Amino acid sequence: MRISELSERTGVSIPTIKFYIREGLLPRGEPTGSNRATYSSHHAGRLALIRTLREVAHLPVATIGEVLSALDEPAAAARGEHVALALGSLARQDRTPTASAASMVASLADRMGWVVDPASGSYRDLAAALTALEEHWGDAFTLDGLERYARIAQELAEMEIPAHWQPADADSLTYAVLGTILYEPVILALRRMAHADRHRRLTRPEGGEDS
Amino acid sequence: MRISELSERTGVSIPTIKFYIREGLLPRGEPTGSNRATYSSHHAGRLALIRTLREVAHLPVATIGEVLSALDEPAAAARGEHVALALGSLARQDRTPTASAASMVASLADRMGWVVDPASGSYRDLAAALTALEEHWGDAFTLDGLERYARIAQELAEMEIPAHWQPADADSLTYAVLGTILYEPVILALRRMAHADRHRRLTRPEGGEDS
Repeated sequence: MRISELSERTGVSIPTIKFYIREGLLPRGEPTGSNRATYSSHHAGRLALIRTLREVAHLPVATIGEVLSALDEPAAAARGEHVALALGSLARQDRTPTASAASMVASLADRMGWVVDPASGSYRDLAAALTALEEHWGDAFTLDGLERYARIAQELAEMEIPAHWQPADADSLTYAVLGTILYEPVILALRRMAHADRHRRLTRPEGGEDS
Repeated sequence: MRISELSERTGVSIPTIKFYIREGLLPRGEPTGSNRATYSSHHAGRLALIRTLREVAHLPVATIGEVLSALDEPAAAARGEHVALALGSLARQDRTPTASAASMVASLADRMGWVVDPASGSYRDLAAALTALEEHWGDAFTLDGLERYARIAQELAEMEIPAHWQPADADSLTYAVLGTILYEPVILALRRMAHADRHRRLTRPEGGEDS
């Protein structure tokens, strides 16, 4: 397809598409003339991912570049690790974790049998989140408590990523990353709703959990 | 306690404490002399909440004011709704939801038996998050799919808020709000870890879910 059609299909303006190509986020189109190029559905999928990473995850262009290179990394693909790597580039927190928070993450990964790279974004994010908990809420959390959350996260992941999932092509990798990100605000909003509803039930005057 | 002790205990500087009092986020201390006042543990708990709302949830002062007034609202307390109201002030999204996203939230609340106020922040956040999903991911989600997420959110809420939970005092309300917020980054980091681990297992060369 021509760049105008690519723009129309993805809702990304032509100057922005050209900017992404210059920044190396999007591969160039196949040249079809002196000043023309043709684009494939791979370009469209990649643009959808870039747009979501910007508009929903609010990531800076440089970080988006890291996520995309992780998806394109052949050595990671051979180890079945490209999605893990791409998700790992999404770190949000830059607070330095305390030693106790970092060691709690290591113990948790051990209990869960998770392979967790200490250089990955989710490792750093979890350690930073536990550091904030420690600082703002004293020692009101324990490894056992954290494990209960991890079991629910595992249950979520098993529901979301079916056992027959296979990275058939670049598009399925894109969708794996998109899904992880796009559902985050959904999950947080649902939990707040469930909390609000539960507080309402537990504290209403007539008492009792249900009526 | 004196303001200096309050500052030391909570890690909030004296000028910042005075600013919160001027902005009406924190009640004045009990006057004990011409230019002195004494502060209680209620002030300390409230300051901890304000600090978390600023540093972890990154909320503007005006929104923090809304959260705190919700906790102090006697009519809401009588209906057992102060935590629900306070959580409802935490809306993050300001995107206008599509009609289909809004109606999906209403149908979901109905299926789950949740009391959801359409003016509340979690209602608006969920509708906005579904609008983003619709826009960025086409129609890849259904009410059934959303309900599976809602069941897991419900499971989380039941684990986090024990059935014997009672809003014994202002402090337990504070901790209810703090817990909802402080665990959000923990939950997201755990889910990314679980996703990364699951992708790694499902795509590794030898195949199979586990070995």
